[in-house]
Amino acid sequence: MPTQLQYARKGEITSAMKTVAGAEKRTAEFIRDQVASGKVVIPCNVNHKNLVPTGIGRQLYTKINANIGNSPTSSCPHDEFVKLETAVKYGADTVMDLSTGGDIGLIRGALLAKATLPVGTVPVYEIVARFGARQISRETILQVIAEQAEQGVDYMTIHAGLKKEYVPLGLKRKLGIVSRGGALLADYMTENRCENPFYVFFDEILDICRQYDVTLSLGDGLRPGCLADASDAAQFAELDTLGELVSRCREHGVQAMVEGPGHIPADEIQMNMERERKICDDAPFYILGPVVTDCAPGYDHLVAGMGGLLGAMYGAAMLCYVTPKEHLGLPNCDDVRRGVMAFKIAAHAADIACGKPGARERDDAISDARSVFDWERQFLLALDPERARACREEAIRESRVNFSSMHGSPYCTMCGKDFCSVRLSAKLKTQY
Amino acid sequence: MPTQLQYARKGEITSAMKTVAGAEKRTAEFIRDQVASGKVVIPCNVNHKNLVPTGIGRQLYTKINANIGNSPTSSCPHDEFVKLETAVKYGADTVMDLSTGGDIGLIRGALLAKATLPVGTVPVYEIVARFGARQISRETILQVIAEQAEQGVDYMTIHAGLKKEYVPLGLKRKLGIVSRGGALLADYMTENRCENPFYVFFDEILDICRQYDVTLSLGDGLRPGCLADASDAAQFAELDTLGELVSRCREHGVQAMVEGPGHIPADEIQMNMERERKICDDAPFYILGPVVTDCAPGYDHLVAGMGGLLGAMYGAAMLCYVTPKEHLGLPNCDDVRRGVMAFKIAAHAADIACGKPGARERDDAISDARSVFDWERQFLLALDPERARACREEAIRESRVNFSSMHGSPYCTMCGKDFCSVRLSAKLKTQY
Repeated sequence: MPTQLQYARKGEITSAMKTVAGAEKRTAEFIRDQVASGKVVIPCNVNHKNLVPTGIGRQLYTKINANIGNSPTSSCPHDEFVKLETAVKYGADTVMDLSTGGDIGLIRGALLAKATLPVGTVPVYEIVARFGARQISRETILQVIAEQAEQGVDYMTIHAGLKKEYVPLGLKRKLGIVSRGGALLADYMTENRCENPFYVFFDEILDICRQYDVTLSLGDGLRPGCLADASDAAQFAELDTLGELVSRCREHGVQAMVEGPGHIPADEIQMNMERERKICDDAPFYILGPVVTDCAPGYDHLVAGMGGLLGAMYGAAMLCYVTPKEHLGLPNCDDVRRGVMAFKIAAHAADIACGKPGARERDDAISDARSVFDWERQFLLALDPERARACREEAIRESRVNFSSMHGSPYCTMCGKDFCSVRLSAKLKTQY
Repeated sequence: MPTQLQYARKGEITSAMKTVAGAEKRTAEFIRDQVASGKVVIPCNVNHKNLVPTGIGRQLYTKINANIGNSPTSSCPHDEFVKLETAVKYGADTVMDLSTGGDIGLIRGALLAKATLPVGTVPVYEIVARFGARQISRETILQVIAEQAEQGVDYMTIHAGLKKEYVPLGLKRKLGIVSRGGALLADYMTENRCENPFYVFFDEILDICRQYDVTLSLGDGLRPGCLADASDAAQFAELDTLGELVSRCREHGVQAMVEGPGHIPADEIQMNMERERKICDDAPFYILGPVVTDCAPGYDHLVAGMGGLLGAMYGAAMLCYVTPKEHLGLPNCDDVRRGVMAFKIAAHAADIACGKPGARERDDAISDARSVFDWERQFLLALDPERARACREEAIRESRVNFSSMHGSPYCTMCGKDFCSVRLSAKLKTQY
C-alpha cells in the first residue's frame, strides 16, 4: 500500500487528505500538493485503525504535541492514560509515548487503541529498556521499529543525524548532549568506536516505514540544552545531515519531519526556523519549546510557550510542549494541563499572526461576548472554559459585595460597576 | 529643585543617576545622557524619601510593573499590602496603586511609606471616587494631582491624549474604549460637550509635576481591547497627540513616558513599538501586555507575557503585568505572583535577546549548576527558588523510588538514572 506521500505524488487525493483539508479550511488539492512536495506530513500508520488524520506543515494550523509515558522511577500505566485524556481534553494534536520503564509495548498498545490522534515514539528508548544500552544494533533497531510499526505507531523519532564525528562537538558544550536519544547513541558510538547505527541502517529503517506509512521525525540529538550552547557548530552540523536524510526519506516515499531546538535566545529563533526551512527543503519543523531563558525552572511551560510563539510565527509546524516540571521531574496531570494550555495559546496566537484561514474567528466571537457581558458565551469560547469560570467564581467569592447573579452582571470585580469601561463604553455607543 | 531631566541637561550627575548606573551596569555619564535626551526616565518624587531610584528606558533592563489596589467591590487595605510584598518578592520594579474604593489617600500614604520602589497612580480614579464622575474639572484635577505629588507619588498616568474628536473613533470599535480612565473621560467629554480637561489644563499639571519631579506616564485611553481593534485609527490618532505631549513635557523639564497597548496580534507588535519610538521621539514605552489572543481568559498572564517578550524585544522599556484574572475579576495574591513571574521571565528573555550588559550571566550560572547536578545552586539561581524546589519535591514524592537524597542525586524523576542525558554526557566528557 502506498504512503500518503506516494499517493500525493501520483495525484491521488486520499480520505486522510480530505479530512485534513476539512480541518484546515483548505482545498483537498492544496493538501495533496503540499504532501507531494513534502511540506506537509500526515502521520497515519495503516494499522492505527481509529486515527483521525492530522496534517503537519508550516502553512497549516500550528500543531502541538504532548509527551506522556513513564520513566523507570515514576508513574504507572493508569496515570499515563489519565495524562493522555488530559492532553486531548486541553487540545493536544499528537501525543508521544516516551515510556522508558515497565511493559512498554503493552502500554503503547493500549494507548494506540484509545488514541484517535497520531501517536509518536522514540524507538531507541524501548531498545535500551529491553535489550540494554550496549545493544543498539542493526537487529534490535529493525526488530523494535518493525514491532512498533506493526502495532500502529504513526511517527517515530530516529536520531539518525547524529554522526560519530559530531559527538566531540556536542561534548565541548556547557551542557553537552541533552537529548536522551542523542546521549544514548553518543555513548554507544563511543563504547563501540562505530558510526551511528540509525544512520548506517537508515535505508532498511525506511523500508519498514514505507510499508506501514510511518512518518519519520528526524531527531535532533544535538539540540542545545542551554542558551550558551544555542546555534552552535554541533547543532548545525547535525542539521545538515538531517537535510540529507530528508532527501533520502522522500526518495524512498517516506514522509519526514525534522526536530529542532531546544534552548534558543529569543533573537535567534527566526534565524533557526529559516535555516531549517532552507537546509531541509521546507520539511515540517517540529520544535521543542524553544526555551528562551534557562533560569525559570518551575515555569518552563511559560518560558517555552513564549519561544514556541516565536518559533511558530517564523515557520515551525509543530511545537512539542514543555511542562512546568521540565528540568526538575516527571510531570503529573496538572502539569500536563499547564503545558498543553501554554502551547495551545502559543500556537493559536501564531496562527493569528500568520493570518491562517479563520484563525481569529474565535477571538472576535469572544470579544463580541465580552462587549455585551455574556459570561456564559465567554466561558464557552474560552480555550479552557472550566478555568475561566473558576477564576470568575473565585474573584466573586473573594469580593466584598454580593453579586446577585454572577452570570448576568454587567461588570466584574476587577473594576466594579462605576469604573467598568466596557459598561461605560456600551452606554456611550448609544449616544453617538 | 530641578527635576532629573533638568539636572541631566545641565550636565549634572545626581545620586539617582549613579544608583541607576550601578544597577544597569552602565556608566553614570551614559545614564545622564539618556535622561537628558528623554530616552530614560527616573521616576523619583522628591517627597518619596525611602525610594531606591530605578531607570526606565529601551536600552536599560526591561522593567515590569505590578498593579495593585482595591476596587469598590473587592479587597481591603491589608490585602493590598500583602500584594505589594508579593509583587516585590517576585521582582516587580514598580507598582501602581489603582485603588478606586475605600480611603484611597490613606492606603496610598501607607503604601508610599513602605515602598522602596517607584509608585505610580492614575489620579482620575481618585477624582471620580471622591468627587464623582461629573466633577473632572480643572479644580479637582489640580487638587488631586497636587495632593498626590505632595504625598510622594513617583509617576502618574494622565489620559491627556484622548481628545474629544477621537472619541467617535474609539466607539466605532468592537469593544469600544476599554481603558478605565479613557472611558471615564470620554463619558465626561460627551456629557459636557467639552475638550478633555487633562489636555486643556496640561501646562498647569506640568507645573505641579516639575515642582515634585513627578514623571508623567501619558496614558493610552484608546488602547485596543481586542485583536479586532488593534492598530486602528483611534489608537494612532491618540498616539500622535501623545507625541505632541512628550515634547511639551520635555520643554517644561518634566520627565515623560508613554503608555501603549493592549491587545495586539503578535505580528503587529514590532510595528507598534517602532511607531511609538518615532512619533514620541524614543520616550520610554510602557506597554500593557500586549495580549496576543483574546480567547484564553484564566491564562492572560501567560498570553500577555508572550506579547510582553515581543514588545520588549522590539523596544518597550517597561511592561505592565497582566494576571490570570484579567477580564474576569480582581487578582488575589497568588494571581499577583503568577503575573509578576510571567513578566519577569518575558523581561529577562528580552534582555538576553537584546544583548543587554550581563543579561545572560544568571542563565549561564544555572546551566553550570545543572551540568553538575547541584540542585541547591539551581534553586538559588532560579527566578523563583521556592517554586523550583517545590516542583522537584513534588515529583520525588509522586515517584515510585526512594531518592535517598533529593539534593545529591545525579538525575531526576524526569528520565531516571539510565536515561539521564546530563549524567551520560558528563561521563562522556571524561572520555574525549
